[in-house]
Amino acid sequence: MTRHSESELAFLSIERAAALLRRREISPLELVDTALARIERWSSSLHAFLTILAEQARQDAKRAEKAIRRGTARSVLHGIPLSLKDNFYTRAIRTTAGSKILADFVPNQDSAVAKSLAEAGAILLGKTNMHEFAYGITGENPHYGSSHNPWAPTRVSGGSSGGSAVAVATGMGWASVGTDTGGSIRIPAALCGIVGMKPTFGLVSVEGVVPLGVSFDHVGPLARSVTDATILLEVIAGKYPRGEMRPSHRALDRNRPRRFRLGWPKDFFFERIHPEIRGAIEAAAKTFQTLGARIEEISLSHLSPAVDRATNIVVAEANYYHESEGYYPARSEEYGDDVRGHLEWGHNLRAVDYLGGLEARRTVIQDFARALERVDAILAPVSPIPAPPIGLRQIRAPGERETSVRAELLRLTRPANVAGIPALSIPCGFTSDGLPIGLQLMGRRWGEARLLAIARAYEEATDWHRRHPALT
Amino acid sequence: MTRHSESELAFLSIERAAALLRRREISPLELVDTALARIERWSSSLHAFLTILAEQARQDAKRAEKAIRRGTARSVLHGIPLSLKDNFYTRAIRTTAGSKILADFVPNQDSAVAKSLAEAGAILLGKTNMHEFAYGITGENPHYGSSHNPWAPTRVSGGSSGGSAVAVATGMGWASVGTDTGGSIRIPAALCGIVGMKPTFGLVSVEGVVPLGVSFDHVGPLARSVTDATILLEVIAGKYPRGEMRPSHRALDRNRPRRFRLGWPKDFFFERIHPEIRGAIEAAAKTFQTLGARIEEISLSHLSPAVDRATNIVVAEANYYHESEGYYPARSEEYGDDVRGHLEWGHNLRAVDYLGGLEARRTVIQDFARALERVDAILAPVSPIPAPPIGLRQIRAPGERETSVRAELLRLTRPANVAGIPALSIPCGFTSDGLPIGLQLMGRRWGEARLLAIARAYEEATDWHRRHPALT
Repeated sequence: MTRHSESELAFLSIERAAALLRRREISPLELVDTALARIERWSSSLHAFLTILAEQARQDAKRAEKAIRRGTARSVLHGIPLSLKDNFYTRAIRTTAGSKILADFVPNQDSAVAKSLAEAGAILLGKTNMHEFAYGITGENPHYGSSHNPWAPTRVSGGSSGGSAVAVATGMGWASVGTDTGGSIRIPAALCGIVGMKPTFGLVSVEGVVPLGVSFDHVGPLARSVTDATILLEVIAGKYPRGEMRPSHRALDRNRPRRFRLGWPKDFFFERIHPEIRGAIEAAAKTFQTLGARIEEISLSHLSPAVDRATNIVVAEANYYHESEGYYPARSEEYGDDVRGHLEWGHNLRAVDYLGGLEARRTVIQDFARALERVDAILAPVSPIPAPPIGLRQIRAPGERETSVRAELLRLTRPANVAGIPALSIPCGFTSDGLPIGLQLMGRRWGEARLLAIARAYEEATDWHRRHPALT
Repeated sequence: MTRHSESELAFLSIERAAALLRRREISPLELVDTALARIERWSSSLHAFLTILAEQARQDAKRAEKAIRRGTARSVLHGIPLSLKDNFYTRAIRTTAGSKILADFVPNQDSAVAKSLAEAGAILLGKTNMHEFAYGITGENPHYGSSHNPWAPTRVSGGSSGGSAVAVATGMGWASVGTDTGGSIRIPAALCGIVGMKPTFGLVSVEGVVPLGVSFDHVGPLARSVTDATILLEVIAGKYPRGEMRPSHRALDRNRPRRFRLGWPKDFFFERIHPEIRGAIEAAAKTFQTLGARIEEISLSHLSPAVDRATNIVVAEANYYHESEGYYPARSEEYGDDVRGHLEWGHNLRAVDYLGGLEARRTVIQDFARALERVDAILAPVSPIPAPPIGLRQIRAPGERETSVRAELLRLTRPANVAGIPALSIPCGFTSDGLPIGLQLMGRRWGEARLLAIARAYEEATDWHRRHPALT
């Protein structure tokens, strides 16, 4: 039926796949089988999936095929196989949140996102591996095995949406949906060389998501291109609060922005950055200039120490969930060491320090708002370091004091969670070791359409996103 | 110039006083001198005032007289002498908040309320005594002396707006403005036999108020009648968020409500109540029935234990202020024992318990909202006990366990602070010992006009508010 190789099929863009499905040059079952073959071949070593829904996906593919044949496809996603991070409730399907505590938890209803995807006709391949309870940024998991970076399997995938990033990067499905509380979509996207987006706080419903920190939790897409990410975002986004998102991919803004201003932060975002990462961001800025962007230096002088102080908010909120559910401290021996450590800290965090966090958050929001009056988007690295080796806990840059790998990985992504502004990661190069580098673009609240258009312009001018890891 | 005795003048209603001023039958200076004479005679024993502005008030009176003579009176309050609780910033006038820490604090600007009153032409007599930092409900003050109850000077006035209530009850000015975070307007109003109102959260600006707990702090009037309180509220209220308050006293709703429904809570508000207080509220309900009210039993079954849990919010917020300002713990020896005790507790309050408070607050808000769908207002006592003796710390009702006087006094007023709904205290009788009893009416969010009209109907049908304490 098809003239495409497995790898050609596996890395089709969603729009191209949808077009081929419509023309019946390929079938949904072919897509599902392609993805499942790759999952079967590589998921056990890369630990991308916690639950694989092979039979259900094949049944869904057959139903989708009939719908497409009848001309009743419900969206561009109809018949497209995707995955979901394992902290989204899925009815009658185990939802572990990467934890031992929820190892046997089977929700009796779907999360809002699972519902939206099903209504759009997307096919669920499985639930992806993640950092336990999303409370970590490396994707290492003591209960189910750590997700491995497909570009260098001894290195972390990044997390907490690590399995989603690995699956998308390796052609185990055409996209995934993850969550991002401090960088948990953007970091694995950057370390695995794909696109990941955290939209404006509140744009996508968190209903039926196992919470980490309710006032910082964001849901968003992981995909292989900005257009694919946009299609996914439009399906899962809720009520389009400001009319900037469109209810159908057909309304997707294909116009390249002609003149736009990008901010280059002189504070916070370019301190202690791996030189090859800095170089890649500088090169991206030059590319943007050729596309009509004016690069302006901007000040974000209040982020330090406000971002650190605002972290008290998420720490407290995480404990509130785990303590209210009776998991912590009652079942503390069932947590991994790192998550237990965070919960021990949060248990005794003072209310006064939480309130200090709220005040710091207001400072961060104002600092970004002022900067974003002058520019359309802000340029930054996603991570100051490339994917570190699995198991590494501490890191020391030349001439610097030792810091935790966790703190380093989170350092540049947390500000957008504190501010609630949309931010995405897009591939912009590789280190000399062949590790992907992510460019971060942060935009205005509810300004995802503009932000995505800017990112798409860059993507169309480069082809970093067309490289895929060689799997063996 | 006048045929009125000092006591007749001192207890004039604001409207009557304004009419006499307009007709030039009395002068503002006469009002000021009347109030100052009473302050001079009784304030040092009752401890009503912390700062007396005799000269400034006389100057203001002369200016007001000229304005009235020229026909340029700015409001019904023009030329009317009032007092302000000492936690409102007053430019160039010491503002102690009843504390030793702020004993020498002289703000360089006015609070929003002080500004509104000055713009309306009201004359400021002085700053009233209060519980230290508003963090207590009895009005006892180790630094400046406790305000005494004018009906029984060995008993507390109630607090924290104790000096304001004493001043208004004794004719040391025609009204006062206080703050209410857990009952601090309603409790002293009830114990001193006057009207006190806490409007909807946010109706009156807290700008320039020394904070206690920012999400529970309310500003409101203390006066000798519902109409006087309404006039004051209209001057100090901000933006009339829902159009229910009117910008001028002339629009004050004089229509007696014809048919209305009042809720009699079967939960929370009538547990462990002094029998004479319960009797007075029952009698008030009968009076309301003669005025056309239907009394319905309502359920507020979620207030316990949610109100107690929500108290964590104010405890944390109080500490946040005192710790951010560097007062606590650095200067802990400068606090009174009770306030220091509260701050010691709040210092180590856990963030998780603060978040539990936020969830409990949502429960309280919903419980009231459901009940207030069915009824226009809710009837309750203000305090379960009459004014206790100064110095008493613990209390035990027959057959009950011992509780703190503080906890008892706050018990029935805190719910309206947690919910943010308007609530007022209105005189409804006396105990056999001659101590005033307050009826509490709680209404719908932004529904102050209706609530005040209901209270006014009751007041017009009774004359509890016409009794004044005999001073010696």
